[in-house]
This record gives sequence, structure tokens and C-alpha cells, in this order.
Amino acid sequence: MNKAERTRQFIIEKAAPVFNTKGYSGTSLSDMTDATGLTKGSIYGNFADKDEVALACFDYSYKKVQEAIKKAMDQYPSYRDKLLVYVEVYTNRGNHDLPTGGCPVLNTIVDADDTHPGLRAKAGAALIQWKERMVVLIDQGKAAGEFRSAVNSEQVALTIIAMLEGMIVIGRGTGKPAYARSVIDSIEQLIRGL
Amino acid sequence: MNKAERTRQFIIEKAAPVFNTKGYSGTSLSDMTDATGLTKGSIYGNFADKDEVALACFDYSYKKVQEAIKKAMDQYPSYRDKLLVYVEVYTNRGNHDLPTGGCPVLNTIVDADDTHPGLRAKAGAALIQWKERMVVLIDQGKAAGEFRSAVNSEQVALTIIAMLEGMIVIGRGTGKPAYARSVIDSIEQLIRGL
Repeated sequence: MNKAERTRQFIIEKAAPVFNTKGYSGTSLSDMTDATGLTKGSIYGNFADKDEVALACFDYSYKKVQEAIKKAMDQYPSYRDKLLVYVEVYTNRGNHDLPTGGCPVLNTIVDADDTHPGLRAKAGAALIQWKERMVVLIDQGKAAGEFRSAVNSEQVALTIIAMLEGMIVIGRGTGKPAYARSVIDSIEQLIRGL
Repeated sequence: MNKAERTRQFIIEKAAPVFNTKGYSGTSLSDMTDATGLTKGSIYGNFADKDEVALACFDYSYKKVQEAIKKAMDQYPSYRDKLLVYVEVYTNRGNHDLPTGGCPVLNTIVDADDTHPGLRAKAGAALIQWKERMVVLIDQGKAAGEFRSAVNSEQVALTIIAMLEGMIVIGRGTGKPAYARSVIDSIEQLIRGL
């Protein structure tokens, strides 16, 4: 990386937790200068505008979650155990390196709903990609005889994602980890029953 | 209602769809003056600050959802059918009068996460109240012999709420109604299997 690329990467690393915590519209230029210790001129010397910083920050946070999940899944040979990694990562059990502010896909979809359509499209594409990867995993588990062949892979994948996202909303909203835990129990039961 | 109360109510009715669509931090004073056609002075003559407008708007949108659900449930004598009203209302089937912008509890919890703790607390309390009402409904269904007595009412209530919230996130994020429909199918299967 040359100096410009390093500065760009530095800005992304420092700004990503802010965007992922405060949301797109909640993150101001002064939040970005505070987080990076750089001037406005330096930030906009490396990015065209706030939209471009937000898009790069989303990619960074999303990649961080993906890497944590892949690393954890690689430890398990069984497809059921691989699927259960989502439960492990989203309850932050184990020692995963996860982005500050929680799930970037959930945060971005809800926050960027009407204010930044480009960011919303990116988060939507990430969600579809996530679902597709889970479908492949469930199909492999069916082919390996681990899951029943009657299982509707796409419905199960979408239902697990919905429960994970809803679990985060409930845990965050009520401040009651026991509630989130209860939803996680349902996800575990669903995966164990496949 | 006296004139001041009518003005206050008018501001709430006009500003609530904006807060429920753009979020707390995304809603500016000029959004409020645009939506109401009133001046800044008139708005802040009736409310102490933006926080107070946001709290009143949340109450308004939340009450609107509650009334739509209660009205629909009153049509059905069976507890299973009453529970299925959540599926009906959240897919906007039937002719319900629902707030612009979608589920105020989901919107508010995610948006007000760090920026307006008072609003977040209100949305969290609404979510807990929602869960409690659903637990009562499931318990009544168990007492009436409609649901199995082994059903864990609280876990089921939290799981249904998580799936509904997650279904909204998925539908909104991907723009694919078929995905949301697939999660809804899982909620229906869950309720029919109780």
C-alpha cells in the first residue's frame, strides 16, 4: 500500500465503528475527524464525500463478520456444527473478532432505509449473499445425510437470518440478555431439528 | 381539546410518519416545519424540544399499531386465530390502518440506539409489553386446550416477535417480498404447530 492507500485504510478502520454504531445519518463530519484525528481536508482528500466513506466502512465491517464466521466454521467438519456457528458468533460466545456496534447488515438496512439508497442496496446484497451461503451449507448437509431431505433450504436460511436479526433487535431494545437467549434457544432447536 | 391541545395533536399526527420513516436523528426541524406547515416558533411553543416531539410521535405510531391489532383480534374467538393476526397485520393483509414507515418499535429501537436513550427506553418498554400480551394470549390458548400445555409461552412469544422483526428487516433490505413471505410461512407453521 502506498501512503494514500494507507491513509484511506486508516480512515475506514477508525470511521467504521462510528458508522456501525451511530448510523449513516447519525454520523457527522466531526465524528469522522474525531475518530481519525484527521482534518476535514484530509478525509475529503481521500474520499469524494460522506457516502463514499460510508460504503467503504460498511464493506470493512461486513468483511470482519464474514471472516469471524468463516474462521469459526472451518473448525467443524459437521454441517450442523457449521450452522450452529451463527448462534455462537451472534451471541458473541467464543473469542471472535467482531465489529463494534453489532451486525452491520441489520444496522445498515434499518438506518439507511431512506437516507442513503446506495448503502441500503449494498446491505441488501450482503443479506442475499449471506442467505445464499447458508442455502449451500444446508444443501451440503442434506447431501451428506445430516439433515432431512424434505428441509426447505431457502426457507430455513431466511428464517434463521430473521431470528438472528430479530434477536439482536430484542436484546438491544429491552436490554435483557435472557430474552435474546430465549430466541437463540429457538434457533438452536430449529438447527438441531433439521 | 383546547386550541393548544389541538395544535399539539396536529403536530404529532403530521410529524409521526416523518420520525417513523427517517428516524430520530434523520428528522430535522425543517422536516417538522415542512410536514406541519407550521413555523419553528409554533412547534417549540408546543413542545420543549425535538426529544419531546419524538417521544409523543412514537406513542402515536405505536398506539396506531396496537389499535389495528386489537380490532383484528376481536373478530376471532379462537386463540390460534388471534395469534395469526400478527401475521396478517405485519404482512399488511386485510385492510388495517397502519402507521407510515412500518413497525415503530423496530424503527425506534434500531434508530434511537445511542442517539436518544429516552426514546430507546420507550420502545424497549413497548416491546416488553407486546411480549407480555402475547404470553397472556398463549397461556389462554393453553388453558382453553387449543395449544399443547408443554409450550413455553415466553419463548414462543419472543421467537414470534424476533421472526416478525427479522422478516421486516429482510423484506426492507432485499426488496424481495418472497423472502419476507417465506419467513411469514415459518411463523404460520410455528403458530399452527403450538
